[in-house]
Amino acid sequence: MSNTFGRLLRVTTFGESHGPAIGCVVDGCPPGIELAAEDFAHDLGRRATGRTRHTSQRHEADVVEVLSGTYEGVTTGTPIALLIRNTDARSKDYTRIAEQFRPGHADYTYWQKYGRRDPRGGGRSSARETTMRVAAGVIAKKWLGERYDVQVRGHVAQIGELTPTTFDWTAVENNPFFWPDAAQVGELDTYMDALRKSGDSVGARIDVIADGVPPGWGEPIYGKLDAELAAALMSINAVKAVGIGDGFDVVAQRGSEHRDEATREGFLSNHAGGILGGISSGQPIRCSVAFKPASSLRLPARGLDAAGEEVEVVTTGRHDPCVGLRATPICEAMVALVLMDQALRHRAQCGDVGEVGPHIPPGASG
Amino acid sequence: MSNTFGRLLRVTTFGESHGPAIGCVVDGCPPGIELAAEDFAHDLGRRATGRTRHTSQRHEADVVEVLSGTYEGVTTGTPIALLIRNTDARSKDYTRIAEQFRPGHADYTYWQKYGRRDPRGGGRSSARETTMRVAAGVIAKKWLGERYDVQVRGHVAQIGELTPTTFDWTAVENNPFFWPDAAQVGELDTYMDALRKSGDSVGARIDVIADGVPPGWGEPIYGKLDAELAAALMSINAVKAVGIGDGFDVVAQRGSEHRDEATREGFLSNHAGGILGGISSGQPIRCSVAFKPASSLRLPARGLDAAGEEVEVVTTGRHDPCVGLRATPICEAMVALVLMDQALRHRAQCGDVGEVGPHIPPGASG
Amino acid sequence: MSNTFGRLLRVTTFGESHGPAIGCVVDGCPPGIELAAEDFAHDLGRRATGRTRHTSQRHEADVVEVLSGTYEGVTTGTPIALLIRNTDARSKDYTRIAEQFRPGHADYTYWQKYGRRDPRGGGRSSARETTMRVAAGVIAKKWLGERYDVQVRGHVAQIGELTPTTFDWTAVENNPFFWPDAAQVGELDTYMDALRKSGDSVGARIDVIADGVPPGWGEPIYGKLDAELAAALMSINAVKAVGIGDGFDVVAQRGSEHRDEATREGFLSNHAGGILGGISSGQPIRCSVAFKPASSLRLPARGLDAAGEEVEVVTTGRHDPCVGLRATPICEAMVALVLMDQALRHRAQCGDVGEVGPHIPPGASG
Amino acid sequence: MSNTFGRLLRVTTFGESHGPAIGCVVDGCPPGIELAAEDFAHDLGRRATGRTRHTSQRHEADVVEVLSGTYEGVTTGTPIALLIRNTDARSKDYTRIAEQFRPGHADYTYWQKYGRRDPRGGGRSSARETTMRVAAGVIAKKWLGERYDVQVRGHVAQIGELTPTTFDWTAVENNPFFWPDAAQVGELDTYMDALRKSGDSVGARIDVIADGVPPGWGEPIYGKLDAELAAALMSINAVKAVGIGDGFDVVAQRGSEHRDEATREGFLSNHAGGILGGISSGQPIRCSVAFKPASSLRLPARGLDAAGEEVEVVTTGRHDPCVGLRATPICEAMVALVLMDQALRHRAQCGDVGEVGPHIPPGASG
Repeated sequence: MSNTFGRLLRVTTFGESHGPAIGCVVDGCPPGIELAAEDFAHDLGRRATGRTRHTSQRHEADVVEVLSGTYEGVTTGTPIALLIRNTDARSKDYTRIAEQFRPGHADYTYWQKYGRRDPRGGGRSSARETTMRVAAGVIAKKWLGERYDVQVRGHVAQIGELTPTTFDWTAVENNPFFWPDAAQVGELDTYMDALRKSGDSVGARIDVIADGVPPGWGEPIYGKLDAELAAALMSINAVKAVGIGDGFDVVAQRGSEHRDEATREGFLSNHAGGILGGISSGQPIRCSVAFKPASSLRLPARGLDAAGEEVEVVTTGRHDPCVGLRATPICEAMVALVLMDQALRHRAQCGDVGEVGPHIPPGASG
Repeated sequence: MSNTFGRLLRVTTFGESHGPAIGCVVDGCPPGIELAAEDFAHDLGRRATGRTRHTSQRHEADVVEVLSGTYEGVTTGTPIALLIRNTDARSKDYTRIAEQFRPGHADYTYWQKYGRRDPRGGGRSSARETTMRVAAGVIAKKWLGERYDVQVRGHVAQIGELTPTTFDWTAVENNPFFWPDAAQVGELDTYMDALRKSGDSVGARIDVIADGVPPGWGEPIYGKLDAELAAALMSINAVKAVGIGDGFDVVAQRGSEHRDEATREGFLSNHAGGILGGISSGQPIRCSVAFKPASSLRLPARGLDAAGEEVEVVTTGRHDPCVGLRATPICEAMVALVLMDQALRHRAQCGDVGEVGPHIPPGASG
Repeated sequence: MSNTFGRLLRVTTFGESHGPAIGCVVDGCPPGIELAAEDFAHDLGRRATGRTRHTSQRHEADVVEVLSGTYEGVTTGTPIALLIRNTDARSKDYTRIAEQFRPGHADYTYWQKYGRRDPRGGGRSSARETTMRVAAGVIAKKWLGERYDVQVRGHVAQIGELTPTTFDWTAVENNPFFWPDAAQVGELDTYMDALRKSGDSVGARIDVIADGVPPGWGEPIYGKLDAELAAALMSINAVKAVGIGDGFDVVAQRGSEHRDEATREGFLSNHAGGILGGISSGQPIRCSVAFKPASSLRLPARGLDAAGEEVEVVTTGRHDPCVGLRATPICEAMVALVLMDQALRHRAQCGDVGEVGPHIPPGASG
Repeated sequence: MSNTFGRLLRVTTFGESHGPAIGCVVDGCPPGIELAAEDFAHDLGRRATGRTRHTSQRHEADVVEVLSGTYEGVTTGTPIALLIRNTDARSKDYTRIAEQFRPGHADYTYWQKYGRRDPRGGGRSSARETTMRVAAGVIAKKWLGERYDVQVRGHVAQIGELTPTTFDWTAVENNPFFWPDAAQVGELDTYMDALRKSGDSVGARIDVIADGVPPGWGEPIYGKLDAELAAALMSINAVKAVGIGDGFDVVAQRGSEHRDEATREGFLSNHAGGILGGISSGQPIRCSVAFKPASSLRLPARGLDAAGEEVEVVTTGRHDPCVGLRATPICEAMVALVLMDQALRHRAQCGDVGEVGPHIPPGASG
């Protein structure tokens, strides 16, 4: 049951890293949305491996086939199945892995849970699965944009100890680091080259902002918008923390500082990150996500093998020195899917509420 | 649908802060657990308001009535309904609130979503609801302890800028701050007194540790143990961030540092917080939760009223200068409920897997 | 998890026949519906025991207390909890039952499932639980009527071998048999008296018709309107069969007879019972439900006791010679709850579809 | 959301009759089951079109590709995706259908719900979808058989007005009618030939029996085993009624006849069909299912077209004179899926209950 995500807009993914294919079924999508195979190319390309020398060198075509759910290029309300064949699955790289539990990986926990596992490329636990999240997210982004003018965008906000010194959305899509400060890109190149050379890896922080979300989305108590965003983002491989608005910074704040005051011109700040009581306030929704450093390293680590013997684990295959570098479109996708699901749920229960006054403009974004 | 929590162990809560009663229905609980009304007193007392001068002065008896689901003091497998009558609902304190949207509160968002709201004490958005989480959590803690020897414990890990200098579990339950360093209690008293006098509030961080969780609990991909912990904890009032293991600290870590190596004696560190690939590893599960500072302050704030006019909002009723102080048992309850739900799900799917070797001892706890 | 019914409008019931109380939580209800405790009296009265000499003589006040979810008499969108105290629980009638497995009852199956059971009045398996279905159904009927002008009505269509010779809705509510032919009421009185005297019981068939359902409600493939009606009705105590439209009669029909043709004036017949492909067609929705004869009889039956010994089981307490006689409002409630749930789901996914032409008038009702 | 079936064993199907492919994802399946593409051939062959001259002449290879969820021929606990390419989709047969609403079909209701539809072969509403139910059911049958020695078998119990005169399971699989009386096969051939010649169709009744189900499966109150069987079977195309045990015959029965008495040698009858209070009793589970006659006929019918004009609808393509003839494996699959799902749920909640005495042997089967 756990391979399905969402309540009304439901995404079920399947597939192993080195199996025949990966895919997903998107159920509950409204009819009438124009959708073609080409729509998936942009975000899949943003996520793709092999995009720069700083990411894993797996080269997948990642061509999406739309198997169902559309007729004459428009969604019909029936389930949309998307399929991507795995074409670059070099399983020879992974033969030794079958005998070892790699530290920091899910090898041991899958083994303990299921009593067996598919070791080829990490099987189901591989980040390959996130490809289908991005694909499903394309549909959600499209609907949110066309129907509500909601825009979901992310960027890398920290790599290791480095943070941006300036912020510019237009920079983000023009460098392989999804970095909002163009002037730092050279520094990042050097930093990543040194890291790769050292055989080590580093963590990253991604921020995602959703602009244009109307007030009222989100369901108290256990379906709160922030609770579902937290689950959605935490479910991405390698994520260890999620914050909404100011996140952990709120611990040291005073209430007089944190509470976002409002005037008729709008909110004066956005410490809350656009969500109060689990419901959107009309301000931009801000999420922060922490990605751990990859555990597959050339540097040897102590671990156990399947026989319980101590072994030295070394990874020789292709791997990313910073898995967070490709995670921006994945985070965006998960946020978009949560928002679309909540939008559908909101109109189910509150479809008759109509416009309610007064309306506080978004005001401050940060 | 959003007032139900869990997949197999399902908790449905109801009730408003100043309505006739609050309650919950716990469905899916295994039969054969001894359960009496008295079992709830300890944790409800830990959460209760009025416990010290540092928390809100609402005095509720909070006597739980078990309405169903037990026979001769033992659970029967049918739904367990718990009820607490609201006896100290002084609604006069809240009359003005009906006309204003308090900054930092859910007043405005409920209004926008539903077109109406119960303003008495915050209605459904009040932290009063968390009482039933604690009650339900008592059942989960009991079952986890008796069936698996799992222990779920929390403590306050930061108040404002203050952090503990030493750590001692026995100290935690012996001061009103759930603070692990007894020597600092006097300092905290002074700190909180000054804060209350200033009319302001401050945030807090709670850490929860679950010891004894066997490897194998948690469901990839969207039912990951960490994803569900994140949702459960983020759904608590005032929470703005959740971390697992090292949380946001992983961003600046190197992979060679983060990945928890293992020998036959056990794991050598626990940066992952006991979860890999969404599945428990057998190490202690560590969660961190950020609580924002309360927004109800004597200090005036700018806001709007129901007519859209700008008003100065001042809170005169009883309120907490640090809402995090009472949150420890709430966080424990949510962690326990997630764990019990996952334990039931695990034996549903993998009940035939049996013991799988090799087994890595928990080793390092932090 | 199984004590919750519905997907968006979710009803969770709890309580045992002779426990302290029974109740339910209705989650997902739209805000803005006027609702008072008095609204439940009519349908609960229609269901009540003790209404005639032909039904069980348990006399419950069945006064509903609304514990949450309304403010100033109007629903707020938060969960609506309803509670009824059990006041006439004469447990002395049931002491022997604890030692025996009554043939035709759930005693043995609960015992085998849970390893224990509450024997007082059948515990959770008692028809007492259906009281809360009727209460929840009141909310659904109210919303369907006010929002869509949908009317859900039921009647008894067969008692033992007796069937109505004429049909008149106004007769149904004017006799204790919910019988559509007033002229037969005397005959039914005689029939039931003889049955009760004989110590035996008899089955019944209930038909429920929903008029005014617009086309488009229902979700293919596994959430079909007819599939959910079947589950909802089959979940009622003592039900053994459910038919939609012509039900089992379709087996012997020809396609040329069964398919409901249409002209611009409307459908020419309604063999389908208003549902095609799992979606409402705009015609009246027709369901038939078969209730088995009660198994609690004065006539002795062979069974086993808890020690595995053969015993003669005789029921001496109050029981109904025809449990179907009180089932009409229960069936109506389940149909109304399914329809309201589907209506909410329909506007979630298809809220933007708008009016679609051409529209075929309902035409023939049967 | 409605294209997913089950709670713990979850089957999500997708695909249109004449789209690129149909498929399903089976999530929640226990690890350790041997599974190969060949396992699906037998039951898909039993369901296949083109098997006799009495069924539609569509010739699909229906070769199942296993896309995920197995490793070295054994299930791993991850989602199992199955895919069948549509190879014989002659869409030219259906061009006129796009302009008309065929009486007795879902054309009009899909149109009203979604504002559009895929008219090629009925799109998603085609019985083609049931292929994937049969495929998923193969996994459930396999697990039930290997793990619990449960056997799920069905047969045609009525075609039009014809019923079997004798009963023999071995006959069922040896004639194209799944008919339990070999001596009547010639008569059925003649009957069906005449029907096809006349251009008309006829209904059918299927009975499914599950032997070996242990007592204790099924979840009161809304997850009752019979309620879920009713929904599962009613969700199959063309089904209009479902009965458990004696079904609608219980209406005219007396309680002294219906209640299944028991001795130490076992139950003396099985009017209940193996389910009491929604939980299996250990007796054979008996279900009856009514299939309506197909509506696609050479005989013209009155209907409307998309412009609202009255038209004469005639079907010229390949269609079945009795759709029930191919439904036996579909019904078996749905029963098997419900049983496996309930078995998993049972061990989740009651996995510690263990063997409970006394145990009543199955005894009488009918």
